[in-house]
Amino acid sequence: METKTMNIKIEKAKTSKIDKVDFDNLAFGNVFTDHMLVCDYKNGSWNIPEIIPYQPISLDPSAKIFHYGQSIFEGMKAYKDENNDIWLFRPLDNCKRLNISAKRMAIPEIPEDYFMEGLTALLKLEKDWIPQTPGSSLYIRPFIFASGTGFHASPADEYKFIIAFAPSGAYFSGKVKVLIEEKYSRSANGGVGYAKAGGNYAGQFYPTQLALEKGYNQVIWTDDNTHEFIEEAGAMNIFVRINDTLVTAPTSDRILDGITRKSILKIAKDEGIAVEERKITVSEIVEAAKNGSLKEMFGAGTAAVISPISAFGFRDVDYDLPEIGDNYASLLKKRITDIQYNRAEDKFGWRVKV
Amino acid sequence: METKTMNIKIEKAKTSKIDKVDFDNLAFGNVFTDHMLVCDYKNGSWNIPEIIPYQPISLDPSAKIFHYGQSIFEGMKAYKDENNDIWLFRPLDNCKRLNISAKRMAIPEIPEDYFMEGLTALLKLEKDWIPQTPGSSLYIRPFIFASGTGFHASPADEYKFIIAFAPSGAYFSGKVKVLIEEKYSRSANGGVGYAKAGGNYAGQFYPTQLALEKGYNQVIWTDDNTHEFIEEAGAMNIFVRINDTLVTAPTSDRILDGITRKSILKIAKDEGIAVEERKITVSEIVEAAKNGSLKEMFGAGTAAVISPISAFGFRDVDYDLPEIGDNYASLLKKRITDIQYNRAEDKFGWRVKV
Repeated sequence: METKTMNIKIEKAKTSKIDKVDFDNLAFGNVFTDHMLVCDYKNGSWNIPEIIPYQPISLDPSAKIFHYGQSIFEGMKAYKDENNDIWLFRPLDNCKRLNISAKRMAIPEIPEDYFMEGLTALLKLEKDWIPQTPGSSLYIRPFIFASGTGFHASPADEYKFIIAFAPSGAYFSGKVKVLIEEKYSRSANGGVGYAKAGGNYAGQFYPTQLALEKGYNQVIWTDDNTHEFIEEAGAMNIFVRINDTLVTAPTSDRILDGITRKSILKIAKDEGIAVEERKITVSEIVEAAKNGSLKEMFGAGTAAVISPISAFGFRDVDYDLPEIGDNYASLLKKRITDIQYNRAEDKFGWRVKV
Repeated sequence: METKTMNIKIEKAKTSKIDKVDFDNLAFGNVFTDHMLVCDYKNGSWNIPEIIPYQPISLDPSAKIFHYGQSIFEGMKAYKDENNDIWLFRPLDNCKRLNISAKRMAIPEIPEDYFMEGLTALLKLEKDWIPQTPGSSLYIRPFIFASGTGFHASPADEYKFIIAFAPSGAYFSGKVKVLIEEKYSRSANGGVGYAKAGGNYAGQFYPTQLALEKGYNQVIWTDDNTHEFIEEAGAMNIFVRINDTLVTAPTSDRILDGITRKSILKIAKDEGIAVEERKITVSEIVEAAKNGSLKEMFGAGTAAVISPISAFGFRDVDYDLPEIGDNYASLLKKRITDIQYNRAEDKFGWRVKV
């Protein structure tokens, strides 16, 4: 990936915070690098992005982000290999999905070259921040929000596109225990569930808090009409292994088209694993858990990578997943991270060198 | 309403912008007064609110409002009568609803006295900003958003509660033409539709833009499952008059419990109008439009007050509403605004003197 001559202006930070960071003990997303990319939408077009020191954003109290939730984001990672080369994983897919989200949320689409060249320039500047500790990576957060002002409930006339970096460790520590939710819902038919819109996440916090209080780590959402079909887990898509078949729900306007999800489907097929994209009922999973055909469940997402599920709860009963040696989760996680960290052949052409 | 001795610190603006405002030509929500109330949630509790000059808010780029849409708001108005006395309409109901929204969005609830006393103190300071032009009022916007930082998709640890004022004219100019929506949806069963959560509004912008392009002003949302039941219009609840009966959809977890809505129901009953809170199907409205029993439709909300609907569109057909002399919309609008502006007896005890 070559940086073209877009002439992204760079204002360097006077001092770096990098020496204060303990790269061996990174949490997820709470340490930020020295710079960020900022791009303003004004008078009907996106300005050329600029790189400036990471700093607070100043907004009018009537900025529409505060009132009407007009915001979208992406989650990506940069990986450093043994030769200190830097890699991205399917970055154009994130850019395209950001623009799919933008359209649904009435936010102006960001030009692909602003996204890609801005990201590349920022990565080159911040390359020393990319962790090489196993399991760590540089988490990349591109986001767009409404900075235009006014209390009228209508799209803003100004927006900010920002890319910020957070060197991060694992999103989940250890296996994940999930609760299949029957009362609360994440998204509606014809709603915004397929978009990475800010409000989709805030709506999950309260039901997730209730699940956390009961000892679960995440909620598996079901359709809002019958609560019979499992959808996704908010921070990740869900895969279920029944006997030796790997099953995941088809994407829809309620489910995020996860980049890890679709990569896992490809890799699994490549491994000769039988794969099904189809509706999965809660009753089917409960039945499979009871009769022993449910071998594995795991979540897949950029932040979560592949997170094995240890048990699921449904109607006050916990169903433990077995510990199996030759599990798909480990195999698929190794395959995808080997591609991401440039430790294996990239037969699908997903890896992009920065 | 007495200001107790909470000791709200007031930092006055050095100069006022009030002389620059044309109070005879106010739009909706784009002029703001000199001061605002700010209250910070930190270390597990809300600080005492303070009044400061209206000014930009500075936030870390990782503040959760930008990423996860954790924000809620209320809409209220202050009215000035002929004696220059200032009135609020059912303000405690807004405070209670803000806290209902807060709970659903995993935002800490604001103490009622912080809300009420903060609002009162700010109103007393800004009393000259309350328009007396007919149809104008001081629009009040209390809102809370996540100011705490970090990319982990979980509730923030810090929040800001702010009240800002905008002297405003009418939300809609003239009658409203609405489109009954069958593809896109506003909310899910078990979702956040009953909360005044920011993301609920952003999700409506794109479908509303499509409706605007077709010549409509607003969308009437239907249930996301069958699209057969009308729900609300995003910025207002919907009332339908069939023959002489006034009908509105019951509130649910998908529909906002509008304060204007419930006041209109009371006033209508008081007027001896037959009132029904029940599910309304689209087919029923279309049928009633065809056979002439559909006499009126109007929206009701704080910003919109009562906005008569001139026509509704459904499946590429427009159905015009008749112009009738003794219409409920005018009667009910007069009754409610007479109470709000202290021009009539307040038999329900809704008006609160500041």
